[in-house]
Amino acid sequence: MPALNPESDLHWMSLALEQARQGIGFTSPNPAVGAVIVAEGELIGQGFHRQAGQPHAEIEALKDARIRAPERIAGSTIYVTLEPCSTQGRTGPCTSAIQAAGITRVVWGAQDPNPSHVGRAQQLLESAGIAVTTGILESECQEILRPFAKWITTGLPYVIAKAGQSLDGRITRPPGEGPWITSEAARAHSQGLRARVDAILVGAETVRQDNPRLTLRNGSLKPQPFRIILTRSGHLPADAYVFTDAYQDRTLVLRDLAFPEVLRDLAARGITSVLIEGGSNVLGQAFAARCVDEVCWYIAPRLCGGGLPVIGGPDWQSSVALENVTLLPIGDNLCLTGRPVWPNLESDHA
Amino acid sequence: MPALNPESDLHWMSLALEQARQGIGFTSPNPAVGAVIVAEGELIGQGFHRQAGQPHAEIEALKDARIRAPERIAGSTIYVTLEPCSTQGRTGPCTSAIQAAGITRVVWGAQDPNPSHVGRAQQLLESAGIAVTTGILESECQEILRPFAKWITTGLPYVIAKAGQSLDGRITRPPGEGPWITSEAARAHSQGLRARVDAILVGAETVRQDNPRLTLRNGSLKPQPFRIILTRSGHLPADAYVFTDAYQDRTLVLRDLAFPEVLRDLAARGITSVLIEGGSNVLGQAFAARCVDEVCWYIAPRLCGGGLPVIGGPDWQSSVALENVTLLPIGDNLCLTGRPVWPNLESDHA
Repeated sequence: MPALNPESDLHWMSLALEQARQGIGFTSPNPAVGAVIVAEGELIGQGFHRQAGQPHAEIEALKDARIRAPERIAGSTIYVTLEPCSTQGRTGPCTSAIQAAGITRVVWGAQDPNPSHVGRAQQLLESAGIAVTTGILESECQEILRPFAKWITTGLPYVIAKAGQSLDGRITRPPGEGPWITSEAARAHSQGLRARVDAILVGAETVRQDNPRLTLRNGSLKPQPFRIILTRSGHLPADAYVFTDAYQDRTLVLRDLAFPEVLRDLAARGITSVLIEGGSNVLGQAFAARCVDEVCWYIAPRLCGGGLPVIGGPDWQSSVALENVTLLPIGDNLCLTGRPVWPNLESDHA
Repeated sequence: MPALNPESDLHWMSLALEQARQGIGFTSPNPAVGAVIVAEGELIGQGFHRQAGQPHAEIEALKDARIRAPERIAGSTIYVTLEPCSTQGRTGPCTSAIQAAGITRVVWGAQDPNPSHVGRAQQLLESAGIAVTTGILESECQEILRPFAKWITTGLPYVIAKAGQSLDGRITRPPGEGPWITSEAARAHSQGLRARVDAILVGAETVRQDNPRLTLRNGSLKPQPFRIILTRSGHLPADAYVFTDAYQDRTLVLRDLAFPEVLRDLAARGITSVLIEGGSNVLGQAFAARCVDEVCWYIAPRLCGGGLPVIGGPDWQSSVALENVTLLPIGDNLCLTGRPVWPNLESDHA
């Protein structure tokens, strides 16, 4: 059995994480996962899950090792960001492939968020005489899994709410001033969020007022996310970009559906993550229904003193704090991210 | 004549600035000014203007030098953050005192903001055979003078607007949640602004709802700033702190006055700087009248979705951008400062 070395474990797991990050945005409804194979302190294979239906990260790393150093796989250690699967899915169980390859130690970061799978891989591997270490860089590995974990445990997609506002919380400027509040650099940064999700959601009023394209930019190789338009009236401009451009088959109109019904509908279509891009009323509905997992707020150094508030709709019964707050200055604009801390409704019964 | 050395000039002027900063908040209606006297590369005297009616910075530095090294003053250089006065005020003109002391070089940072004084000191000194250098660390020196410069050139006090808001621009939380949105550390930081001004201004509704003390904290030696209460109705709670505490003679109620009349009234009382602490409507009035020179905005990582907007009142005809923006994280709260860029009305005629 290879010697345990906690410092090396962190090092190799960080390389597995680098692999996993290459898959973010491409693997839905699977999570992004990365793996590296190490023999006697040397990396001999690496890989990541590229797309649902394609091999898992462990198999990709094994394929790589079979080219680089096939004679060194027996007795090696594999580092995976996520507990290996032990069930027959679209691909064979990774635990079997690991055992068949002669790997003698398996290290993973996060456990399978699917409650019915937890613990099975460890039991199977250990009973085959394979050493198992878990929890290495666990929170970093879980971070990548957050959208998948939300979807698999709740049946709802992971929701990111994006907004661009003036310092005083307005999203429209006085008449005659033009539509933009945040800077071009901030808007370009915010478009990068689209590559993280399966769907982009806006209200009908946003389509009528802004006619956004809601497409990926900068030559992204990722397939175009679904474009979800919420409408009550059903009156939408037929010549809007989302209905006429090359991705018109990726546009979906949902009529007269409120949160969280909207999200259940999307989850049932295999959509595991949604970016809400506004407007005011749609953001208000999503927050009022406590359906937001992450916020990404762009703030411009401007005061508007009136106009549409960033969050519209009826007053809330309670405000919501954000945790894990990060600040990123983008020129003189600011990007603030955080996670709403929704009250744990079950704890009321504790 | 002492040799010119641009690098040394920066060094000594930065020490003069340190002196000047010690006077900030104490010198009204005079500006805060600092001075150092240097002989053959050694500091022999330093001082700052402590209070209106007391000696100017140059005289304080000369007093210090007369104790430390009286024999070295003749032939020395004096560094002053502001162009020395050349007129007889409550004290004698500093240009005369400098000449009488035998100082042979005078270096200053900012020129006198009073247009009728500009250039006089240089002419007087040079005709007395004293070398003059100007503009050293000019913008840093001007920064300290901003409130005085506004008051002396416009007849209006310098106005700082302070607000504490949720990320979405609200200043009240839903019923039952308590009054505070920003953190204790952010509120303590914001109280430090009070030491910079001659007066703190709030609306009657703020007195009725929050009953603030509007006093200096942390053992400040500065006199209590005036507390200005704006009211339309005149209905104010007689038992509020501002009417009953030890500083009740520093509370002033202004009835039925709108901006900028409020500011003209205050300037006439010798008030050169005002901190507006809210609420929503008073901030709205001050910005609508384009009377704000600096904003200090505290943002809490919380979404309220409703409640009072940070800036109330009627919609504006134009929004206003901020420049010289700074960001200061205070725990998970954020302090953003900046200066409104009001359109130059005169340029419309250019």
